[in-house]
Amino acid sequence: MTLAQPWHHEIGAAGSRYRINTPALILDLDQLERNLAAMATAMDSTGKMLRPHIKSHKCSRIAKLQIDHGAAGICCATLDEAEVMADHGLSGILITSPVTTSEKIARLTALVAHAADTAVVADHPQNLSDLADAAERARLVINILVDVELGFGRTGVTTPDAAIALARAVQAKPALSFAGLQAYGGHLQHILSASERAAVTCQAGAYIGKIRDEVRKAGLSPTIVTGGGTGTHAVDGAGDWFTEIQAGSYPLMDADYGAVAYREGEGWPFHPALFVQAAVVSANIPGTVTVDSGTKAIATNGPAPQIVSDDLTGATFEFTGDEHGRIRLPPTVQAPKIGQRIELIVSHCDPTVAMHDTYHCIRGDRLVDIWSIDARGRR
Amino acid sequence: MTLAQPWHHEIGAAGSRYRINTPALILDLDQLERNLAAMATAMDSTGKMLRPHIKSHKCSRIAKLQIDHGAAGICCATLDEAEVMADHGLSGILITSPVTTSEKIARLTALVAHAADTAVVADHPQNLSDLADAAERARLVINILVDVELGFGRTGVTTPDAAIALARAVQAKPALSFAGLQAYGGHLQHILSASERAAVTCQAGAYIGKIRDEVRKAGLSPTIVTGGGTGTHAVDGAGDWFTEIQAGSYPLMDADYGAVAYREGEGWPFHPALFVQAAVVSANIPGTVTVDSGTKAIATNGPAPQIVSDDLTGATFEFTGDEHGRIRLPPTVQAPKIGQRIELIVSHCDPTVAMHDTYHCIRGDRLVDIWSIDARGRR
Repeated sequence: MTLAQPWHHEIGAAGSRYRINTPALILDLDQLERNLAAMATAMDSTGKMLRPHIKSHKCSRIAKLQIDHGAAGICCATLDEAEVMADHGLSGILITSPVTTSEKIARLTALVAHAADTAVVADHPQNLSDLADAAERARLVINILVDVELGFGRTGVTTPDAAIALARAVQAKPALSFAGLQAYGGHLQHILSASERAAVTCQAGAYIGKIRDEVRKAGLSPTIVTGGGTGTHAVDGAGDWFTEIQAGSYPLMDADYGAVAYREGEGWPFHPALFVQAAVVSANIPGTVTVDSGTKAIATNGPAPQIVSDDLTGATFEFTGDEHGRIRLPPTVQAPKIGQRIELIVSHCDPTVAMHDTYHCIRGDRLVDIWSIDARGRR
Repeated sequence: MTLAQPWHHEIGAAGSRYRINTPALILDLDQLERNLAAMATAMDSTGKMLRPHIKSHKCSRIAKLQIDHGAAGICCATLDEAEVMADHGLSGILITSPVTTSEKIARLTALVAHAADTAVVADHPQNLSDLADAAERARLVINILVDVELGFGRTGVTTPDAAIALARAVQAKPALSFAGLQAYGGHLQHILSASERAAVTCQAGAYIGKIRDEVRKAGLSPTIVTGGGTGTHAVDGAGDWFTEIQAGSYPLMDADYGAVAYREGEGWPFHPALFVQAAVVSANIPGTVTVDSGTKAIATNGPAPQIVSDDLTGATFEFTGDEHGRIRLPPTVQAPKIGQRIELIVSHCDPTVAMHDTYHCIRGDRLVDIWSIDARGRR
């Protein structure tokens, strides 16, 4: 006998949204579609391409919807993600972090053999040599983007000269093809003040444009100049530095971007489509209830998860363990009952999604589908 | 063609520990065995039983080793975990948090039908009624432990009177069986000062003993009085309040308990058996390198992950993204090379383990097995 079977879900039945296994990821398909359409509109108006980052949602179904909405390809943070996406027929994959161990480089050549338009970033001569050696042995060519550091202090070359030198090193290897530049300003995405965010994004953009121009002067063709994110998509879209934007969070959103949205006001185009559904497990302490969603269901690196329920206005959430959270209720609010479902905007969408295996896709009060978070996990 | 295949692992080969897919969970089996033996020795000397909490490791293989080392059964935090453990033949399962939604209660009866010695905690009359109704419909009896709140503010009844009333309510339902009390002091486990931790644990113990005595006076038999954790195992073991200890972290350990161990000194019996193996992906910024392990590989709720390498003494780790961490190097330390593996003691073992699918089991520099983290995920 197998007890640990999938739940029986009455797909499409009224109220089925509230009969699932908590804690669960909820994906509001109506809002997801509005977010995808809003980004397509934003990109159309700029003439830039979109290569959305799938690390946020890790789901081939959502990636395909992004392609349907005009995306030129997808970004993946890891080789693991790229392999899954290629298996599901996605193409135009850019791996946005260097692939450096010899074991992963061997697997990368298998991916490139299957999907020649795959590209990977590099920021170091040794890594280029390793990639070129593997590509030569596999008798294929790997597309390389030179990764440029923008002050985030994570990956990338740190000077224009280093970028040109690395681009030339790519050009010099027959088994590598220089495809362009990546410059990701992770530290720019969540600056709350729109004007400050725009100012520093333009400053970074000027630096990227300068490197692009110097690379061109050196006789190289940076066909792709890629970067940006959900927070800077409008400014990066309006600027002349990128050919494409890598936004990732816009389909789902979270409390982290909620703070940005709040400051942006009416003009902000993306709203939460992702929630964690919790259930009340204890209600003995006046002014609080305990729910079954903790640090194994919602990532902690971000603002506190936010309760979405008109009945619970003013209530707040705090983590109290792996499987527990405390909801503090204002005096005016009636305590929810044992077993009652409560939905939360998550603190930070990317690491939260990576904790779960499936999206519970809803429209209104109906569960309408279950989508696999198929690029979760490592092999 | 399927690109996203399991890695080919040369099980048992020299150096195979360092040819795996980073970021990866590493489980040092030699240290795991020492930790299991140390806890068995500690429990033997007290006469208490051990019902270890498997929420820390979520692995039926480790649970079976705990039974082999004398455990009386296992604790699970969720119904999902309990179902997996029962499927793998584990028995004596206690679910340590109330099961409150009607859908979960229906599944709980299926579990109890399969494994009649399963027990679950409850802290509310409504929950008892719901459990009793489901048990009656399924024509079985569910074992109930009354959950007692110890100041952690999470679950449990908050007064001795409420404990007695709830125990009587259990007794009054033919479909429920009163098995005893649970009192978990999560807030006591990580108090750094051993004497302060002992003092407050004894204080909590006196309260638990008082409730147990009053429950007995009311004519009820609390056969099981369960609680405690790795941090309080020695004091709880020496005290007269518990019949069994629920320690969970001791097989694996983490930086959180490392702070406790440091203060305990030589007498502390448990040492890290769990690590995350990262690889260097970028090394362009003097005094730092970037590795491929971030907030999707290591939980952030705890002290910073600690680097375990004699070559990197004094280096520190900080999170820089979903898939990235920064290693800051002291001036005396030579920077690790691109692709080099670096292992880290994790901040907090439980939520870190829940991010991964497998343990890469090692002895020395050899990968000797891959164990499934089979109770990870939800259905």
